[in-house]
Amino acid sequence: MKDDAHLTETAIASTEILKGRFLHAFRDTVLLPDATETTREYIVHPGAVMVIALLDDGRVLLERQYRYPMHRVMIEFPAGKLDEGEASLACAKRELFEETGYTAREWAKAGVLHPVISYSTEFIDIWFARGMIAGERELDAGEFLEVFTATPAELSDWCRDGQVTDAKTLTGMLWLQNVLSGAWALDWQIPTS
Amino acid sequence: MKDDAHLTETAIASTEILKGRFLHAFRDTVLLPDATETTREYIVHPGAVMVIALLDDGRVLLERQYRYPMHRVMIEFPAGKLDEGEASLACAKRELFEETGYTAREWAKAGVLHPVISYSTEFIDIWFARGMIAGERELDAGEFLEVFTATPAELSDWCRDGQVTDAKTLTGMLWLQNVLSGAWALDWQIPTS
Repeated sequence: MKDDAHLTETAIASTEILKGRFLHAFRDTVLLPDATETTREYIVHPGAVMVIALLDDGRVLLERQYRYPMHRVMIEFPAGKLDEGEASLACAKRELFEETGYTAREWAKAGVLHPVISYSTEFIDIWFARGMIAGERELDAGEFLEVFTATPAELSDWCRDGQVTDAKTLTGMLWLQNVLSGAWALDWQIPTS
Repeated sequence: MKDDAHLTETAIASTEILKGRFLHAFRDTVLLPDATETTREYIVHPGAVMVIALLDDGRVLLERQYRYPMHRVMIEFPAGKLDEGEASLACAKRELFEETGYTAREWAKAGVLHPVISYSTEFIDIWFARGMIAGERELDAGEFLEVFTATPAELSDWCRDGQVTDAKTLTGMLWLQNVLSGAWALDWQIPTS
Protein backbone atom coordinates (compact mmCIF):
# COMPACT_ATOMS: atom_id res chain seq x y z
CA MET A 1 0.00 0.00 0.00
CA LYS A 2 1.26 3.44 -0.96
CA ASP A 3 1.86 6.18 1.55
CA ASP A 4 -0.96 8.58 0.72
CA ALA A 5 -0.22 11.27 3.31
CA HIS A 6 0.26 13.81 0.52
CA LEU A 7 -3.37 13.22 -0.54
CA THR A 8 -5.15 12.43 2.73
CA GLU A 9 -7.74 14.66 4.41
CA THR A 10 -8.21 14.48 8.18
CA ALA A 11 -11.47 15.24 9.99
CA ILE A 12 -11.32 17.72 12.85
CA ALA A 13 -15.08 18.29 13.37
CA SER A 14 -18.42 16.95 12.13
CA THR A 15 -21.90 18.51 12.18
CA GLU A 16 -25.22 17.04 11.12
CA ILE A 17 -26.73 19.43 8.57
CA LEU A 18 -29.79 17.47 7.43
CA LYS A 19 -31.88 14.76 9.05
CA GLY A 20 -34.57 14.25 6.46
CA ARG A 21 -37.00 11.38 6.04
CA PHE A 22 -34.57 9.77 3.58
CA LEU A 23 -31.46 11.97 3.28
CA HIS A 24 -29.02 12.28 6.16
CA ALA A 25 -26.17 14.74 5.63
CA PHE A 26 -23.10 15.96 7.49
CA ARG A 27 -20.61 18.79 7.09
CA ASP A 28 -17.13 17.92 8.32
CA THR A 29 -14.28 20.33 8.83
CA VAL A 30 -11.14 18.70 7.46
CA LEU A 31 -7.44 19.39 7.19
CA LEU A 32 -6.10 19.18 3.66
CA PRO A 33 -2.65 17.68 2.95
CA ASP A 34 -1.12 21.19 3.16
CA ALA A 35 -2.74 21.67 6.61
CA THR A 36 -5.25 24.26 5.39
CA GLU A 37 -8.88 23.80 6.48
CA THR A 38 -11.90 23.17 4.31
CA THR A 39 -15.32 21.57 4.64
CA ARG A 40 -16.76 18.39 3.12
CA GLU A 41 -20.51 17.78 2.89
CA TYR A 42 -21.83 14.30 2.28
CA ILE A 43 -24.81 11.97 2.55
CA VAL A 44 -24.59 9.02 4.93
CA HIS A 45 -26.17 5.95 3.33
CA PRO A 46 -26.64 2.41 4.72
CA GLY A 47 -25.40 0.70 1.52
CA ALA A 48 -27.24 -1.36 -1.04
CA VAL A 49 -27.11 -4.42 -3.26
CA MET A 50 -27.70 -5.07 -6.97
CA VAL A 51 -28.59 -8.44 -8.49
CA ILE A 52 -27.67 -9.65 -11.97
CA ALA A 53 -30.00 -12.62 -12.32
CA LEU A 54 -29.14 -15.08 -15.11
CA LEU A 55 -32.18 -16.96 -16.38
CA ASP A 56 -31.81 -20.47 -17.80
CA ASP A 57 -32.60 -19.20 -21.32
CA GLY A 58 -29.65 -16.78 -21.20
CA ARG A 59 -31.73 -13.66 -20.52
CA VAL A 60 -31.29 -11.36 -17.51
CA LEU A 61 -33.89 -9.85 -15.17
CA LEU A 62 -34.42 -6.09 -15.43
CA GLU A 63 -36.80 -3.50 -14.04
CA ARG A 64 -38.43 -0.34 -15.29
CA GLN A 65 -39.01 2.13 -12.48
CA TYR A 66 -39.85 5.84 -12.28
CA ARG A 67 -36.94 7.68 -10.68
CA TYR A 68 -38.15 10.97 -9.37
CA PRO A 69 -34.87 12.98 -9.53
CA MET A 70 -34.60 11.96 -13.23
CA HIS A 71 -38.31 12.64 -13.91
CA ARG A 72 -38.50 9.52 -16.00
CA VAL A 73 -38.63 5.74 -16.06
CA MET A 74 -35.21 4.09 -15.93
CA ILE A 75 -34.06 0.58 -16.88
CA GLU A 76 -32.15 -1.04 -14.01
CA PHE A 77 -30.96 -4.28 -12.53
CA PRO A 78 -32.96 -5.13 -9.37
CA ALA A 79 -31.45 -3.36 -6.35
CA GLY A 80 -32.27 -2.16 -2.90
CA LYS A 81 -30.97 -0.79 0.37
CA LEU A 82 -29.67 -2.84 3.27
CA ASP A 83 -31.90 -2.98 6.31
CA GLU A 84 -30.15 -2.22 9.58
CA GLY A 85 -27.89 -5.14 10.51
CA GLU A 86 -28.82 -7.08 7.35
CA ALA A 87 -26.12 -9.14 5.62
CA SER A 88 -25.47 -8.36 1.97
CA LEU A 89 -26.59 -11.74 0.58
CA ALA A 90 -29.72 -11.74 2.72
CA CYS A 91 -30.56 -8.32 1.31
CA ALA A 92 -29.90 -9.48 -2.26
CA LYS A 93 -32.24 -12.47 -1.80
CA ARG A 94 -34.91 -10.32 -0.15
CA GLU A 95 -34.87 -7.52 -2.72
CA LEU A 96 -34.85 -9.94 -5.65
CA PHE A 97 -37.82 -11.82 -4.24
CA GLU A 98 -39.83 -8.77 -3.19
CA GLU A 99 -39.35 -6.94 -6.48
CA THR A 100 -39.42 -9.83 -9.00
CA GLY A 101 -40.78 -12.91 -7.19
CA TYR A 102 -37.67 -14.90 -8.16
CA THR A 103 -35.50 -16.99 -5.88
CA ALA A 104 -32.09 -18.36 -6.93
CA ARG A 105 -30.27 -21.59 -6.15
CA GLU A 106 -26.77 -20.16 -6.61
CA TRP A 107 -25.19 -16.83 -5.78
CA ALA A 108 -21.81 -15.20 -6.49
CA LYS A 109 -20.51 -11.91 -5.13
CA ALA A 110 -18.82 -10.10 -7.98
CA GLY A 111 -17.62 -6.89 -6.35
CA VAL A 112 -18.70 -3.53 -5.07
CA LEU A 113 -19.28 -0.13 -6.63
CA HIS A 114 -19.41 3.34 -5.13
CA PRO A 115 -21.96 5.45 -7.03
CA VAL A 116 -20.94 8.90 -5.88
CA ILE A 117 -17.59 9.07 -4.15
CA SER A 118 -17.61 12.86 -3.89
CA TYR A 119 -20.71 13.26 -1.72
CA SER A 120 -22.16 9.98 -0.42
CA THR A 121 -20.92 7.03 1.63
CA GLU A 122 -23.13 4.68 -0.42
CA PHE A 123 -21.75 1.36 -1.64
CA ILE A 124 -23.58 -1.19 -3.80
CA ASP A 125 -22.58 -4.86 -3.55
CA ILE A 126 -22.83 -6.60 -6.93
CA TRP A 127 -24.35 -10.09 -6.82
CA PHE A 128 -24.92 -12.63 -9.60
CA ALA A 129 -27.70 -15.19 -9.25
CA ARG A 130 -28.52 -18.31 -11.29
CA GLY A 131 -30.77 -21.35 -11.02
CA MET A 132 -33.74 -18.98 -10.98
CA ILE A 133 -37.18 -20.09 -9.78
CA ALA A 134 -40.13 -17.85 -10.58
CA GLY A 135 -42.69 -16.93 -7.92
CA GLU A 136 -45.08 -14.19 -6.88
CA ARG A 137 -43.47 -10.86 -6.00
CA GLU A 138 -44.33 -8.88 -2.85
CA LEU A 139 -43.78 -5.19 -3.57
CA ASP A 140 -43.61 -2.78 -0.66
CA ALA A 141 -46.56 -0.43 -0.31
CA GLY A 142 -46.00 2.57 -2.57
CA GLU A 143 -43.53 0.67 -4.79
CA PHE A 144 -44.35 0.60 -8.50
CA LEU A 145 -42.06 -1.15 -10.96
CA GLU A 146 -42.21 -3.41 -14.00
CA VAL A 147 -40.11 -6.56 -14.30
CA PHE A 148 -38.95 -7.73 -17.73
CA THR A 149 -36.15 -9.74 -19.31
CA ALA A 150 -33.61 -9.02 -22.03
CA THR A 151 -30.71 -10.77 -23.69
CA PRO A 152 -27.23 -9.52 -22.74
CA ALA A 153 -26.85 -8.32 -26.36
CA GLU A 154 -30.02 -6.22 -26.11
CA LEU A 155 -28.90 -4.73 -22.80
CA SER A 156 -25.49 -3.93 -24.27
CA ASP A 157 -27.15 -2.10 -27.18
CA TRP A 158 -29.22 -0.05 -24.73
CA CYS A 159 -26.06 0.85 -22.75
CA ARG A 160 -24.40 2.03 -25.97
CA ASP A 161 -27.33 4.02 -27.35
CA GLY A 162 -28.32 5.81 -24.13
CA GLN A 163 -31.46 3.88 -23.17
CA VAL A 164 -29.56 2.69 -20.08
CA THR A 165 -27.76 5.47 -18.18
CA ASP A 166 -28.00 4.25 -14.58
CA ALA A 167 -24.40 3.88 -13.35
CA LYS A 168 -24.99 0.71 -11.30
CA THR A 169 -26.63 -0.98 -14.29
CA LEU A 170 -23.82 0.14 -16.63
CA THR A 171 -21.35 -1.29 -14.11
CA GLY A 172 -23.43 -4.47 -14.04
CA MET A 173 -23.12 -4.61 -17.84
CA LEU A 174 -19.31 -4.47 -17.51
CA TRP A 175 -19.45 -7.44 -15.15
CA LEU A 176 -21.99 -9.35 -17.25
CA GLN A 177 -19.98 -8.89 -20.45
CA ASN A 178 -16.75 -10.06 -18.86
CA VAL A 179 -18.32 -12.97 -16.99
CA LEU A 180 -20.09 -14.23 -20.12
CA SER A 181 -16.89 -13.95 -22.20
CA GLY A 182 -14.99 -15.90 -19.55
CA ALA A 183 -12.58 -13.02 -18.91
CA TRP A 184 -13.76 -12.54 -15.31
CA ALA A 185 -14.49 -15.56 -13.09
CA LEU A 186 -17.14 -15.83 -10.39
CA ASP A 187 -17.05 -17.93 -7.24
CA TRP A 188 -20.53 -19.49 -7.14
CA GLN A 189 -21.94 -20.65 -3.84
CA ILE A 190 -25.08 -22.57 -2.89
CA PRO A 191 -26.38 -20.91 0.29
CA THR A 192 -27.75 -23.33 2.87
CA SER A 193 -30.68 -21.07 3.77
CA MET B 1 -42.26 5.70 -26.24
CA LYS B 2 -44.33 3.65 -23.82
CA ASP B 3 -47.19 5.07 -21.84
CA ASP B 4 -45.69 5.14 -18.36
CA ALA B 5 -48.67 6.59 -16.47
CA HIS B 6 -48.84 3.46 -14.30
CA LEU B 7 -45.30 4.22 -13.05
CA THR B 8 -45.12 8.03 -13.09
CA GLU B 9 -44.91 10.21 -9.99
CA THR B 10 -46.25 13.78 -10.12
CA ALA B 11 -44.95 16.67 -8.01
CA ILE B 12 -47.49 18.67 -6.04
CA ALA B 13 -45.11 20.67 -3.80
CA SER B 14 -41.38 21.27 -3.35
CA THR B 15 -39.44 22.56 -0.32
CA GLU B 16 -35.75 23.36 0.00
CA ILE B 17 -34.46 21.35 2.95
CA LEU B 18 -30.71 22.04 2.73
CA LYS B 19 -28.70 24.88 1.25
CA GLY B 20 -25.18 23.88 2.20
CA ARG B 21 -21.87 25.08 0.84
CA PHE B 22 -21.88 22.15 -1.58
CA LEU B 23 -25.06 20.12 -1.11
CA HIS B 24 -28.43 21.52 -2.14
CA ALA B 25 -31.43 19.36 -1.29
CA PHE B 26 -35.19 19.44 -1.76
CA ARG B 27 -38.13 17.48 -0.43
CA ASP B 28 -41.01 17.18 -2.88
CA THR B 29 -44.48 15.94 -2.15
CA VAL B 30 -45.53 13.66 -5.00
CA LEU B 31 -48.53 11.68 -6.11
CA LEU B 32 -47.80 8.02 -6.75
CA PRO B 33 -49.45 6.16 -9.65
CA ASP B 34 -52.25 5.04 -7.31
CA ALA B 35 -52.87 8.70 -6.30
CA THR B 36 -51.49 8.25 -2.79
CA GLU B 37 -49.04 10.87 -1.53
CA THR B 38 -45.41 10.41 -0.54
CA THR B 39 -42.25 12.50 -0.33
CA ARG B 40 -39.05 12.37 -2.38
CA GLU B 41 -35.80 13.92 -1.13
CA TYR B 42 -32.97 14.59 -3.55
CA ILE B 43 -29.82 16.54 -4.20
CA VAL B 44 -29.80 19.10 -7.02
CA HIS B 45 -26.49 18.93 -8.91
CA PRO B 46 -25.23 21.01 -11.89
CA GLY B 47 -23.94 17.96 -13.81
CA ALA B 48 -20.41 16.88 -14.61
CA VAL B 49 -18.11 15.43 -17.24
CA MET B 50 -15.63 12.55 -17.33
CA VAL B 51 -12.75 12.21 -19.80
CA ILE B 52 -11.28 8.96 -21.11
CA ALA B 53 -8.03 10.22 -22.61
CA LEU B 54 -6.30 7.82 -25.02
CA LEU B 55 -2.55 8.38 -25.19
CA ASP B 56 -0.63 7.60 -28.37
CA ASP B 57 1.08 4.62 -26.69
CA GLY B 58 -2.30 2.99 -25.95
CA ARG B 59 -2.38 3.94 -22.27
CA VAL B 60 -5.14 5.98 -20.60
CA LEU B 61 -4.92 8.91 -18.17
CA LEU B 62 -6.04 8.23 -14.61
CA GLU B 63 -6.01 10.03 -11.29
CA ARG B 64 -5.56 9.08 -7.65
CA GLN B 65 -7.54 11.35 -5.36
CA TYR B 66 -8.62 11.23 -1.72
CA ARG B 67 -12.40 11.01 -1.57
CA TYR B 68 -13.54 12.11 1.84
CA PRO B 69 -16.85 10.17 2.07
CA MET B 70 -14.88 6.98 1.24
CA HIS B 71 -12.04 7.88 3.63
CA ARG B 72 -9.50 6.70 1.09
CA VAL B 73 -7.72 7.39 -2.17
CA MET B 74 -9.68 6.30 -5.26
CA ILE B 75 -8.56 5.59 -8.83
CA GLU B 76 -10.67 7.58 -11.31
CA PHE B 77 -10.86 8.94 -14.80
CA PRO B 78 -10.45 12.75 -14.79
CA ALA B 79 -13.80 14.43 -14.10
CA GLY B 80 -15.32 17.62 -12.84
CA LYS B 81 -18.47 19.67 -12.41
CA LEU B 82 -19.94 22.01 -15.00
CA ASP B 83 -19.60 25.69 -14.23
CA GLU B 84 -22.82 27.67 -14.55
CA GLY B 85 -23.70 28.01 -18.23
CA GLU B 86 -20.66 26.01 -19.34
CA ALA B 87 -20.99 23.66 -22.33
CA SER B 88 -20.12 20.02 -21.76
CA LEU B 89 -17.13 19.90 -24.13
CA ALA B 90 -15.73 23.17 -22.77
CA CYS B 91 -15.93 21.67 -19.29
CA ALA B 92 -14.23 18.46 -20.44
CA LYS B 93 -11.35 20.44 -21.98
CA ARG B 94 -11.03 22.67 -18.92
CA GLU B 95 -11.08 19.89 -16.34
CA LEU B 96 -8.65 17.72 -18.32
CA PHE B 97 -6.21 20.62 -18.66
CA GLU B 98 -6.51 21.87 -15.08
CA GLU B 99 -6.14 18.43 -13.52
CA THR B 100 -3.62 16.77 -15.88
CA GLY B 101 -2.08 19.51 -18.07
CA TYR B 102 -3.13 17.66 -21.23
CA THR B 103 -4.96 19.08 -24.22
CA ALA B 104 -6.48 16.91 -26.97
CA ARG B 105 -6.83 17.39 -30.72
CA GLU B 106 -9.91 15.18 -31.08
CA TRP B 107 -12.96 14.62 -28.92
CA ALA B 108 -15.92 12.22 -29.06
CA LYS B 109 -19.01 12.26 -26.85
CA ALA B 110 -19.74 8.67 -25.89
CA GLY B 111 -22.83 8.99 -23.72
CA VAL B 112 -24.09 9.98 -20.33
CA LEU B 113 -24.40 8.25 -16.98
CA HIS B 114 -26.52 9.00 -13.93
CA PRO B 115 -24.61 8.05 -10.77
CA VAL B 116 -27.45 8.00 -8.27
CA ILE B 117 -30.90 8.01 -9.82
CA SER B 118 -32.66 7.56 -6.48
CA TYR B 119 -31.48 10.77 -4.77
CA SER B 120 -29.56 13.15 -7.05
CA THR B 121 -30.18 14.94 -10.34
CA GLU B 122 -26.49 14.53 -11.27
CA PHE B 123 -25.52 13.44 -14.77
CA ILE B 124 -21.97 12.82 -16.03
CA ASP B 125 -21.26 13.25 -19.74
CA ILE B 126 -18.69 10.71 -20.98
CA TRP B 127 -16.06 12.11 -23.34
CA PHE B 128 -13.21 10.37 -25.16
CA ALA B 129 -10.11 12.38 -26.13
CA ARG B 130 -7.16 11.50 -28.37
CA GLY B 131 -4.25 13.29 -30.00
CA MET B 132 -3.02 14.18 -26.52
CA ILE B 133 -0.47 16.96 -25.94
CA ALA B 134 1.17 17.15 -22.52
CA GLY B 135 1.49 20.46 -20.66
CA GLU B 136 1.62 21.88 -17.17
CA ARG B 137 -1.48 21.36 -15.05
CA GLU B 138 -3.18 24.15 -13.07
CA LEU B 139 -4.88 22.60 -10.04
CA ASP B 140 -7.43 24.67 -8.15
CA ALA B 141 -6.38 25.84 -4.71
CA GLY B 142 -7.08 23.06 -2.22
CA GLU B 143 -7.06 20.38 -4.92
CA PHE B 144 -4.66 17.47 -4.40
CA LEU B 145 -4.47 14.63 -6.88
CA GLU B 146 -1.94 12.44 -8.65
CA VAL B 147 -2.03 11.81 -12.39
CA PHE B 148 -0.78 8.50 -13.79
CA THR B 149 -1.31 6.24 -16.79
CA ALA B 150 -2.27 2.60 -17.21
CA THR B 151 -2.94 0.19 -20.03
CA PRO B 152 -6.60 -0.74 -20.61
CA ALA B 153 -5.72 -4.30 -19.54
CA GLU B 154 -4.32 -3.06 -16.22
CA LEU B 155 -7.39 -0.92 -15.61
CA SER B 156 -9.67 -3.87 -16.44
CA ASP B 157 -7.82 -6.03 -13.90
CA TRP B 158 -8.30 -3.33 -11.25
CA CYS B 159 -12.04 -3.14 -12.05
CA ARG B 160 -12.32 -6.91 -11.62
CA ASP B 161 -10.30 -7.22 -8.43
CA GLY B 162 -11.83 -4.27 -6.55
CA GLN B 163 -9.05 -1.69 -6.82
CA VAL B 164 -11.43 0.42 -8.91
CA THR B 165 -14.92 0.79 -7.42
CA ASP B 166 -15.90 4.29 -8.58
CA ALA B 167 -19.06 3.85 -10.67
CA LYS B 168 -18.20 6.49 -13.29
CA THR B 169 -14.78 4.89 -13.84
CA LEU B 170 -16.33 1.40 -14.05
CA THR B 171 -18.78 2.78 -16.62
CA GLY B 172 -15.82 4.34 -18.45
CA MET B 173 -14.20 0.89 -18.51
CA LEU B 174 -17.33 -0.53 -20.19
CA TRP B 175 -17.05 2.15 -22.87
CA LEU B 176 -13.28 1.76 -23.24
CA GLN B 177 -13.49 -2.01 -23.60
CA ASN B 178 -16.21 -1.83 -26.25
CA VAL B 179 -14.61 1.04 -28.18
CA LEU B 180 -11.23 -0.71 -28.28
CA SER B 181 -12.81 -4.01 -29.42
CA GLY B 182 -14.65 -2.15 -32.19
CA ALA B 183 -18.07 -3.18 -30.83
CA TRP B 184 -19.09 0.42 -30.05
CA ALA B 185 -18.24 3.25 -32.47
CA LEU B 186 -17.37 6.84 -31.59
CA ASP B 187 -18.02 9.96 -33.66
CA TRP B 188 -14.73 11.86 -33.40
CA GLN B 189 -14.69 15.60 -33.92
CA ILE B 190 -11.90 18.15 -34.19
CA PRO B 191 -13.12 21.21 -32.27
CA THR B 192 -12.24 24.54 -33.90
CA SER B 193 -11.40 26.20 -30.57
